[in-house]
Amino acid sequence: MGSRANAIVAQSGGPTTVINSSACGVIQEAMKSGKIGRVIGATNGILGVLKEDLFDISAESAESIEALRRTPAAAIGSCRYKLKSIEESKADFERVLDVFKAHEIRYFFYAGGNDSMDTADKVNKLAADAGYELVCMGIPKTVDNDLAFTDHCPGYPSVAKYVATCAAEAGKDTEALYTTDTCTILEVMGRNAGWIAAATGLAAVTPEDAPHLVYMPEAAFSFDKLVRDVEEVVRRLGRVFIVAGEGLKDENGDYITADSGAFGKDSFGHAQLGGVAEMLKAVIEKEVRIKARFNKLGTNQRAAMHFASLTDVNEAYMCGQTAVRAALEGVNGKMVTLVRAEGAKYECATGLAGLKDVANGEKKVPAEYINEAGNHVTDAMRDYVRPLVQGEAPVTIGPNGVPVFMRFERKPLAKKLPAHL
Amino acid sequence: MGSRANAIVAQSGGPTTVINSSACGVIQEAMKSGKIGRVIGATNGILGVLKEDLFDISAESAESIEALRRTPAAAIGSCRYKLKSIEESKADFERVLDVFKAHEIRYFFYAGGNDSMDTADKVNKLAADAGYELVCMGIPKTVDNDLAFTDHCPGYPSVAKYVATCAAEAGKDTEALYTTDTCTILEVMGRNAGWIAAATGLAAVTPEDAPHLVYMPEAAFSFDKLVRDVEEVVRRLGRVFIVAGEGLKDENGDYITADSGAFGKDSFGHAQLGGVAEMLKAVIEKEVRIKARFNKLGTNQRAAMHFASLTDVNEAYMCGQTAVRAALEGVNGKMVTLVRAEGAKYECATGLAGLKDVANGEKKVPAEYINEAGNHVTDAMRDYVRPLVQGEAPVTIGPNGVPVFMRFERKPLAKKLPAHL
Repeated sequence: MGSRANAIVAQSGGPTTVINSSACGVIQEAMKSGKIGRVIGATNGILGVLKEDLFDISAESAESIEALRRTPAAAIGSCRYKLKSIEESKADFERVLDVFKAHEIRYFFYAGGNDSMDTADKVNKLAADAGYELVCMGIPKTVDNDLAFTDHCPGYPSVAKYVATCAAEAGKDTEALYTTDTCTILEVMGRNAGWIAAATGLAAVTPEDAPHLVYMPEAAFSFDKLVRDVEEVVRRLGRVFIVAGEGLKDENGDYITADSGAFGKDSFGHAQLGGVAEMLKAVIEKEVRIKARFNKLGTNQRAAMHFASLTDVNEAYMCGQTAVRAALEGVNGKMVTLVRAEGAKYECATGLAGLKDVANGEKKVPAEYINEAGNHVTDAMRDYVRPLVQGEAPVTIGPNGVPVFMRFERKPLAKKLPAHL
Repeated sequence: MGSRANAIVAQSGGPTTVINSSACGVIQEAMKSGKIGRVIGATNGILGVLKEDLFDISAESAESIEALRRTPAAAIGSCRYKLKSIEESKADFERVLDVFKAHEIRYFFYAGGNDSMDTADKVNKLAADAGYELVCMGIPKTVDNDLAFTDHCPGYPSVAKYVATCAAEAGKDTEALYTTDTCTILEVMGRNAGWIAAATGLAAVTPEDAPHLVYMPEAAFSFDKLVRDVEEVVRRLGRVFIVAGEGLKDENGDYITADSGAFGKDSFGHAQLGGVAEMLKAVIEKEVRIKARFNKLGTNQRAAMHFASLTDVNEAYMCGQTAVRAALEGVNGKMVTLVRAEGAKYECATGLAGLKDVANGEKKVPAEYINEAGNHVTDAMRDYVRPLVQGEAPVTIGPNGVPVFMRFERKPLAKKLPAHL
């Protein structure tokens, strides 16, 4: 490819604490390679490509690019716009190629989950069919940690560290005030996967420590069992601290929350989750007759840069960097994976997996990480997640005493095509 | 008083990040004074006194006592049991004195809010009437920051730092994903005072920064105005990040949440708050027709030791230390206050205020800290809170990569009286 070949970087889906660190890895590696012209940002992911809403990341200051490592969420901009099959979304897919051609884009670096890997794979195939030379590389990103072929996903370690810390801290609050506020429920994200909920097991070192009960979507949930579990813990400790995944399901695999369907589905076709904490609170107050309260960290759990895992920040960067190196070495159509070395000492290298394989896979919390009662994790789970949360990542504290984050200047690229969308 | 005179330390009401730091100040100062016998902990505040459920803090390890500075919540134990007037709660008040006499307690150090200062004041008067030599000292504690006679309350600076950080971080999340999740609501504590909500103004450095709207109970809230405010911000930025105090009230001074009454009142007679975020979300989705989501940090905001304000941790310690020093110098019936020096440079010393005066006072966010539209803070508010949140406090990170906290061994004191309660 010629030296004029440009690269595009896009971010997709729910933000994470470290997706910008991956972007930083892509951008810095691409800029220093000498083999890539401009590094272009697609404002709000694939939407930015479709709308030809692009900006010149190469023109941003080096300080701003470096500060991506310490900035949560998705600084280039994300979206939940989903491209379906090539037949169903034909106009969109062709538009992507048109925009790539118009801006001489030969490298497409896409950070996201299954759906994004699917999109990257389809764009790649379409380009090949059209004889347009294009390299599509995926970078894993999801707090849910549900991508197959990778030991874990960048973004997960930081949310794991944060929610475990929140469980430890709010657990001390419940321990202090159990005479009135006997039960606390911490609702966490993770959709159909219980990885985030399971990580809070790191806080439970002794039986007294929170969380006392951890409910994950992988273990069939029943309110009868909840009531028995809660009564047992309260009898023993006088209090109970519960962690509940947002996507708990009953033995039929149906979401337990009445409002799972109420707000319809999100743009990716996923059911909108929420309300688990409220429902558990109501049942516990009614059936166990103790006061219950809930904490719902919401988007704060996936944006908690102020207590991110340094391991995560560094691995996320490495994934971005590796995507560029691999692309320049001729690799195409792959997502970078994280490969954990065998043995007691934690070491992590990168690997590669086919975009289509990742798109079709899903990784749930395995049975051996969940206790027999289905209400807590095993030590095997703790062994899995412990190395991931090590180290504290730096943030820049501003004059107001709170962290400050970067924001791109966004020098827009002139549009070359008629409008689409 | 004789060298056998013992001191009791008790913690009351909702825990904070630094109430244990105050306890540490009391305990370490008392133990090194040489003038106090045992330092006794009242398990779960005044309940522990009434139940004669006491333990010997002097027998705890020095490491454990020192670790109080890095442990959130209330390690001695707290409660919401309220003593009313001396007439109404006669048996309880007499019981307190009986327990004090039985254990030769001559110093009562009580960390709490208005209600606790009221209790300490009444115990003090009762002791004087009975001719029992007793020194009662109050230590300010409340995340709500609503105590009069003190520039601010220990506990508030840490929650202020944390919620401002959460607003900055979740604000970046909203900024990244505004094309689908256009509105985020962060519900914060504070009951009838908007101090916690107001602190998030520290995160809003430019008009683009979150939060864009801050609603405090001191400014009459209306849903019509909310809709107009939200529409204006969305028109300008394409997104909106809202901070809402849990105790918002309409122009008649009534709580806006339907469930304010539904769960009755708490043990102190305060209305149980909650549900503001859910209500704002519902109204915004219906009237503005944008998707809204909410984060409710709950007890995590008052327990966030992992990002506490170092200024707060140190001042809380100083308050505990000062209470002991003052008591040993003959002061009685006072609460320690924080006194901010005049001038641009932040300096803070301690002062004293009468327990009864504090009990009867309440400090709301003043009008000059709230903008004219009643939907954000002024720079005067930022100037007030900025020095308080400075510095990061250390936590002890355990082998699991998350903070670990101390727990007392609780060597119980033998009971000397018949049961009560």
